[in-house]
Amino acid sequence: MNFSYSDKVKRLQNDLQSFMDEVVYPNEKRYEEQLDSTNRFSYIPPVMEEMKEKAKQAGLWNLFLPDAKEGAGLTNVEYAPLCEIMGRSAIAPEVFNCNAPDTGNMEVLVRYGTKEQKDKWLTPLLNGEIRSAFSMTEPDVASSDATNVEISIIKEGDEYVINGTKWWSSGAGDPRCEILIVMGKTDPTAERHKQQSMILVPTKTPGVKIKRMLPVFGYDDAPHGHAEIEFDDVRVPASNLLLGEGRGFEIAQGRLGPGRIHHCMRTIGAAERALELMCTRVVSRVAFGKTLAEQGVVREWIAQSRIEIEQARLLTLKAASMMDTVGNKVAKKEIAMIKVIAPNMALKVIDRAIQAFGAAGVSEDVPLAAMFAGIRTLRIADGPDEVHLEAIAKQELKPYFTR
Amino acid sequence: MNFSYSDKVKRLQNDLQSFMDEVVYPNEKRYEEQLDSTNRFSYIPPVMEEMKEKAKQAGLWNLFLPDAKEGAGLTNVEYAPLCEIMGRSAIAPEVFNCNAPDTGNMEVLVRYGTKEQKDKWLTPLLNGEIRSAFSMTEPDVASSDATNVEISIIKEGDEYVINGTKWWSSGAGDPRCEILIVMGKTDPTAERHKQQSMILVPTKTPGVKIKRMLPVFGYDDAPHGHAEIEFDDVRVPASNLLLGEGRGFEIAQGRLGPGRIHHCMRTIGAAERALELMCTRVVSRVAFGKTLAEQGVVREWIAQSRIEIEQARLLTLKAASMMDTVGNKVAKKEIAMIKVIAPNMALKVIDRAIQAFGAAGVSEDVPLAAMFAGIRTLRIADGPDEVHLEAIAKQELKPYFTR
Amino acid sequence: MNFSYSDKVKRLQNDLQSFMDEVVYPNEKRYEEQLDSTNRFSYIPPVMEEMKEKAKQAGLWNLFLPDAKEGAGLTNVEYAPLCEIMGRSAIAPEVFNCNAPDTGNMEVLVRYGTKEQKDKWLTPLLNGEIRSAFSMTEPDVASSDATNVEISIIKEGDEYVINGTKWWSSGAGDPRCEILIVMGKTDPTAERHKQQSMILVPTKTPGVKIKRMLPVFGYDDAPHGHAEIEFDDVRVPASNLLLGEGRGFEIAQGRLGPGRIHHCMRTIGAAERALELMCTRVVSRVAFGKTLAEQGVVREWIAQSRIEIEQARLLTLKAASMMDTVGNKVAKKEIAMIKVIAPNMALKVIDRAIQAFGAAGVSEDVPLAAMFAGIRTLRIADGPDEVHLEAIAKQELKPYFTR
Amino acid sequence: MNFSYSDKVKRLQNDLQSFMDEVVYPNEKRYEEQLDSTNRFSYIPPVMEEMKEKAKQAGLWNLFLPDAKEGAGLTNVEYAPLCEIMGRSAIAPEVFNCNAPDTGNMEVLVRYGTKEQKDKWLTPLLNGEIRSAFSMTEPDVASSDATNVEISIIKEGDEYVINGTKWWSSGAGDPRCEILIVMGKTDPTAERHKQQSMILVPTKTPGVKIKRMLPVFGYDDAPHGHAEIEFDDVRVPASNLLLGEGRGFEIAQGRLGPGRIHHCMRTIGAAERALELMCTRVVSRVAFGKTLAEQGVVREWIAQSRIEIEQARLLTLKAASMMDTVGNKVAKKEIAMIKVIAPNMALKVIDRAIQAFGAAGVSEDVPLAAMFAGIRTLRIADGPDEVHLEAIAKQELKPYFTR
Repeated sequence: MNFSYSDKVKRLQNDLQSFMDEVVYPNEKRYEEQLDSTNRFSYIPPVMEEMKEKAKQAGLWNLFLPDAKEGAGLTNVEYAPLCEIMGRSAIAPEVFNCNAPDTGNMEVLVRYGTKEQKDKWLTPLLNGEIRSAFSMTEPDVASSDATNVEISIIKEGDEYVINGTKWWSSGAGDPRCEILIVMGKTDPTAERHKQQSMILVPTKTPGVKIKRMLPVFGYDDAPHGHAEIEFDDVRVPASNLLLGEGRGFEIAQGRLGPGRIHHCMRTIGAAERALELMCTRVVSRVAFGKTLAEQGVVREWIAQSRIEIEQARLLTLKAASMMDTVGNKVAKKEIAMIKVIAPNMALKVIDRAIQAFGAAGVSEDVPLAAMFAGIRTLRIADGPDEVHLEAIAKQELKPYFTR
Repeated sequence: MNFSYSDKVKRLQNDLQSFMDEVVYPNEKRYEEQLDSTNRFSYIPPVMEEMKEKAKQAGLWNLFLPDAKEGAGLTNVEYAPLCEIMGRSAIAPEVFNCNAPDTGNMEVLVRYGTKEQKDKWLTPLLNGEIRSAFSMTEPDVASSDATNVEISIIKEGDEYVINGTKWWSSGAGDPRCEILIVMGKTDPTAERHKQQSMILVPTKTPGVKIKRMLPVFGYDDAPHGHAEIEFDDVRVPASNLLLGEGRGFEIAQGRLGPGRIHHCMRTIGAAERALELMCTRVVSRVAFGKTLAEQGVVREWIAQSRIEIEQARLLTLKAASMMDTVGNKVAKKEIAMIKVIAPNMALKVIDRAIQAFGAAGVSEDVPLAAMFAGIRTLRIADGPDEVHLEAIAKQELKPYFTR
Repeated sequence: MNFSYSDKVKRLQNDLQSFMDEVVYPNEKRYEEQLDSTNRFSYIPPVMEEMKEKAKQAGLWNLFLPDAKEGAGLTNVEYAPLCEIMGRSAIAPEVFNCNAPDTGNMEVLVRYGTKEQKDKWLTPLLNGEIRSAFSMTEPDVASSDATNVEISIIKEGDEYVINGTKWWSSGAGDPRCEILIVMGKTDPTAERHKQQSMILVPTKTPGVKIKRMLPVFGYDDAPHGHAEIEFDDVRVPASNLLLGEGRGFEIAQGRLGPGRIHHCMRTIGAAERALELMCTRVVSRVAFGKTLAEQGVVREWIAQSRIEIEQARLLTLKAASMMDTVGNKVAKKEIAMIKVIAPNMALKVIDRAIQAFGAAGVSEDVPLAAMFAGIRTLRIADGPDEVHLEAIAKQELKPYFTR
Repeated sequence: MNFSYSDKVKRLQNDLQSFMDEVVYPNEKRYEEQLDSTNRFSYIPPVMEEMKEKAKQAGLWNLFLPDAKEGAGLTNVEYAPLCEIMGRSAIAPEVFNCNAPDTGNMEVLVRYGTKEQKDKWLTPLLNGEIRSAFSMTEPDVASSDATNVEISIIKEGDEYVINGTKWWSSGAGDPRCEILIVMGKTDPTAERHKQQSMILVPTKTPGVKIKRMLPVFGYDDAPHGHAEIEFDDVRVPASNLLLGEGRGFEIAQGRLGPGRIHHCMRTIGAAERALELMCTRVVSRVAFGKTLAEQGVVREWIAQSRIEIEQARLLTLKAASMMDTVGNKVAKKEIAMIKVIAPNMALKVIDRAIQAFGAAGVSEDVPLAAMFAGIRTLRIADGPDEVHLEAIAKQELKPYFTR
C-alpha cells in the first residue's frame, strides 16, 4: 500500500481546490436561487452549465474514468483525494462531470456498451450534454437482495417489452435525463443469478411514466431528484440490451465496486467540510461568557471527528489501493468495510456540527442538514449497512469453518 | 411517586386512542394533500378544522391546561399519557388544541395576563380560533443563554417600540396566527436577569415583517412553519406588556418547565409509533429468504428500543410527578434530564426504524424522516443538550463542593 | 405503579444507611486485610461475623425474604431501595444475610423444600450459620440455554447418583458452605423442559471435589469464590430431590426472577456509589490549573451518569412493581429489560469513574475496578444480554405476527 | 505514505509468526504455572530465559531499537507489524527484549546516556540481563500534567538526594530490575518546563523502598508488577543525572512518542488476537440449536471488530510513517490520535470476545480479561484520553483562531 500522491495528483488536487474556492463555493447559493421554485424539475440553473464549461476548460473533467482514452486514466488511489474534494459541495460533482449515477452509467457503457450504444449515449454523457439514471430498486421487494428484482423484460420479436415499477431512480427528474439503465428479469426460470438483465431505455419512450419525485428528509434534490417510474408496456429495440440476457447481476456487481467507493470518497469530503464549518463556528460563537471553542465538550467533538475522519479516509485509500492492485473482487471485504464506515462516520461528524450551529444547523443557512439527509441514504443505498456487515462477517469467519 | 392512572385518565386515554384511530390517522395523508403546494403558508387544510370540531365535541380539548376552570384540570402525571398519544402524529396536537407553542402561550396568559389581555387573546386561543407564536430566539446571539436576547423594547409615552430580528418563531407562518409573545430588553443597564421583558405583539402591527420561513432539514412545516421576523419600529400599547418590566426572564422560566415536559411526552409517543411502524414492517418484509423480524440484529434493535422508550417514559413520569408535588423549581434537575434523554432516545429509535424501512424510511411514505427532523430540533430548542447536561452536573456536584 | 416509599421502608432505609456509614464502610479495608493471603479460601474475616451480629440485632436481617414469617415480608418494590443500599459495598449483602446465591437458595427452600430439608438447611441459612451454592452452569455447554445442562442425576435404589462437572458455583469456596443445589438431568429422554431436576448435595458428600477456584478478571473473590466442581459418583438420599423429578426447569424459572432483580438493585447501588466516588474525586483533583470538576467533559460524564442511573432505577422499580402485582411470569419482559440495562448502565458509570481517578481507579485503593469486574459478569450470568434481548424482541413482536 | 512491507520486514514478520506459534503460545500456560504462587515477585519463570535465548539466536532481538548499531535499525513503519505480532501475547514482548518500559529506558540511554551510563546499564539491558523501571507518576498529583511532578532531586556536593513517593513504576517488582529512571524536580523556582530532571537510581540504593505492588483489576502482573516506591533520602552520584538539570521534561517528551506508538502497535495485536479467539469460539459453540457464528448479532460484532481494527492499524501506520519522515514533533497530533483510539478500539473488541466466551471470558482460561485490564490502563497511562483529545482539538482549532 502506497498512499503517497504523485505529482500529477498533487497538481490536480491543487487545481481542484482553487476551482472550488473560486468557482464552486461562491455559486452554491446562486445555484439554489436559480432553481425554479414552482416547477422544480423543469429547469437547470444556468450557473451549472457555466461552471461545467469552466471545469472542462480547466481540464477538470471526467476525472473519475479510469479509461485513459475517454477519461483521466487515474487509479482509484489517485482519484480518491480528488473525489473527496468534490464531495465537499453538493453541486460540485456535476460541475466536473463526476456525479452519480452518471459516473457508474458511463463506466457500464465503456465496459459493456456496443459501438452503437456508445455513440448514442456514452459520448453525450462524457460531454455532459445529457444525463442518465439507474433503475434498479423497486418499491415492493427488498432490493438489498438484488435477485429480488421483479420488473419484467420480455423479448417480443426484435423488441424487449418492459413492465413494472422502479423507484429511487436518482437523476431521473433532470430535464436533461435522456437514458435509463433498467435492471429487470428476462428469465424468471433461470438460476437465481442469471435471471436478470440490464437494458437501455430512453426516457422519452412511450410508457415510461414518472409517477412522483421522492423526497429525502423533505428535500426534493431538484432538479435531479429521485423518481418513482412506472414502465407500462415500454418497448425498446433488442439491441438496447447490455452485454446479454442473464448478465444483469454480473454488470450490477461490476458497477457497484467503484460506485460505492466514489460515494465514500465524497462522503469523507463532506465530513471534512462539516468539521471545517464546525471549527469556524465555534471560534466565533459566544455563550455563557466564552466561545464554544473553549468548551471542553465541543473540543472533544472536534478531536473525535478528526480521528474518525482520518481513520475512514485511510481505510478508503486501502480499499482503493486493493481495487487497483488485486481487483474489485478480492477487495470486496474492504469495499464493504468503507461502505459501512464512511456514512456512519460522516453522520456523527455532521450531527456534531449541527449541534454546534444550533438552530442554524438544521436550516438552509449551512449545508449541514442537507448533507445529513443525503448521507443518511447511503446507509441504505447500494445495500444497507446490515448486508455489508454480514458480508464482512462471512469473509472473516470463512477460514474458521474450514479449519 | 405514584404513576398509576386514575379512572378519569384511563377514560381519556381510551377516548383519545379511539379518536386517533378513527379520526386522526386516517386523515394524515389527506391533511398533506390539502396543503396548498404553491403558497404553502396561505391556507389551512379544511380537514384540520373538521377534526378540531370533533375533538371539541368529544371533550378532548385543552387537556394540557392544569387550570380546572379554563382547561381540563389535569396534573402533569395525568396529562403525560395523553400528551404521549397526541405525540404519535404530527397533526394530532393541534386537533386537540394542545400544540406548541400555543399551549405555552396560553399558560403564560392564564398565569400572567390581565383581564383585557385574556379577553383579547386567551379566549380565542382556548377556542382554537386564532394561533400564536413565541419570539425568543435571535439569529445573532447564542439563545441557549437567555440573557443574550438583544431585541429592544423601549417605552415611548404609552407605547413600547420594538426593534430587532427574531427567528425560529414557530407557528408564525400560520395565516391564523394573530399574536406574538416577544421577549426583548427593556433595560440593558439593569442586572443581568432583570433586563428582559415580554410583550404581546399582534402580527398585523405595522413594522412586523416575516423575512422568510426557515426549513428544518427540507421540511417547511407549513402551514405553521418557523419564521424569521424583523421588528422595525413596531409600536404597541404599553398595556401589552406582560407582568411588568424586567420580568421576562421570570416568565420564560415559568413557561419552559411545562413546555419542555410536554415536548418530551410527545417525543415518547413519536418513538413508540416509530417502534410500532418498525415492527409492522419487519414482520412482512422478506430479504435473503426470511423476514427481517427473523434477523437477530433487527430483533436487537427492537429490544433496545423498547428498553430505551420505557426508561425515558418512566423518567418523564418522575419529572412530571415532581412538578406536581414539589414544583417546577425543585424538579429542575429532573426536567433537564428528560429534556436531554427523550429526544436522544427517540432519534435512536426512529433511526433504526428508518433503517428497517430502507429507502421508504427517508421518504414521505412513512412519517419517520419527518419525525426525525422535528425531534432533532428538540436537541437544540429550549436550550441545547449541552446546556442541560451542564445544569444537571452543577446540581449533582453542589453537595460535594460544600462538604 | 406506585413507587412511593411506605413509612416502614423509609425507616429501614434510614437504619440501613446509618448502619452502612457506621459499620460497613469503615470495615471494608479491614475485611480485606483480615483475609488470609496464602490460603484464601480457608478462613472468614472475623469482622464479618461481628457485623452480621450487629445487623441481626438492628433488625436488618433477611430483608430479602418476602415470606412474612421467616423474613421481613417486604414486597419487591419495598425491598428495592434497601437492596440498592446493600449493593453499594461488596461486603454488605452478606452482613445483612441478603447475598447471592444464598438468597435464591433460601427462597427455593422456602417455596419447594420439605419440612426435613428446611430444618436441615433453611434454618441455619436464615440464621447465617452456614452458606450455600448453586451449581447450574457447566463448562462444556452454553448454559444460556438451560436445557443444555448435562450432568446426570440417576436414581439407584433410594439414592441419586450424580456425575459430571459444574463451574461458576459461586460461594462454594466459602469454608462455611455446607450445601449445594445442583441442577442436572434425571431423564434425558423426557420432553425438553422436563428432563432436569434439582437436588440438594451436602458439600462434604464423598465425590464432591473442588477442582479449582475461578478468577474474575484477576479477582479470586475469596473467601466465597467461584468453584469448578467435579461430581464423581456422588450419592445422596432420594429425599434430597427438590419438588420432584423433571421439575428442575420450573424451579430455575421461579428462582431466577427475584434473583435477577436483586442483582439489578444492587447494581444500581454500585453505580450510585461509583458516581459518588467520582464526584468526590473531581472536586478535589487539580490538573492543568483547575479541578477536574471544572472540566466540561467530566461534567458531562456526571450528568450522563445521573440520567442513566435514574432511568435504570425507575425501570427496576417498574419491574419490581409488576412482580408484586401481576406476578413474575407476566413481568418477564420487564425483568429481562432491567437484567440487560442495569449492568450495562453501571459499567458505563464505573468506567467513567475509573477514568476520573486515573491510575488509582484500576487499583485496590478505590472499589471501582473490583465493581467493574463483578458487574461485568452480570452481563453473562443468568443468561447473557443477547438471550434477554432476544426474549424481549420475541414478546414485542408477538402481537404483530398474529395480526 | 507508503505502508508496503519491505522484503526485510516480510521475512521478520514470517520469522516472528513462526516463533510465536512454535515457542511463545505453547508456553503461555507454562509461564503462568512456573510463577511462584506465594512469593510472586521473587522469581522469574525459567521458561522466559529459555525463550529469550531462542529469540536471540533467531535474530529476533531488540527489534524496537531504531539505532542500526545497537538494534535492528528499523523505522517505525517497519517495526509496526512486528511489534503488533508481539502484542498478541502478554509474555511475548519480553521474549524479544522489546517490552515496556525497558524499550523506552534503553532509548533514553542510547540518546542521552554518557559512555559510563551506557556501559553500566544500557549494555546489560540490551543483552536482556537486567531490567529497569521508569518512575514518573506520583500518587498525590495529576501526572497527566507532567509539570505536576513533585519528588525532589537536590544536589548536595557531588551527589543528588532524592525524596518523595512514586507509584505505577511498572517492572520494578521484577527481581532482575536493577535501575530506575526517576523524574523529579531539581529546581522548583525555574520556569515551568525547566524544573524537572531525570536521574538514574539503582534499585539497591539505600532509601529506595517498595511500599507495595499495585494490582490492576485484581492482576498483580507478577513478576514485573507495578510498584509504589518511597525514596527516603536516596543518594546517588551526580554523574547519574541524565542530559542535565532542567531537561527532564525534554527527555520525557522524546521518550513518549515511540513509547506511545509501541503500545498502540501491541494493542492492535491484542485486538487481533481477541477477534481470532472470538471467531474460533463462535464457530464451535452451540446455543439454541445453532452455532454462535450463525447468530446475526455475533456476526455484526465480528464485522464491526474487523472494521475498527483495520482503521486503527492504518492510523497507527500513518503516525509511524510521519514519525519516520517528518519527526515526532510534527507527528504529535497523529500520535495523540492513535494513543486515544487504539486502546478504546481494542477494549470494544475484547469486550465482545469476552461476551462470546461467556463465563470463560472473564476467567483465566482465555487471555481476554487480562488483556482487557492491561489495555484499560492505557486509556490512563502516558496521559489519559482526555488530555490527548484536548491536544488534538488544540491543533485542529489553531488555524481558525489565527484567521
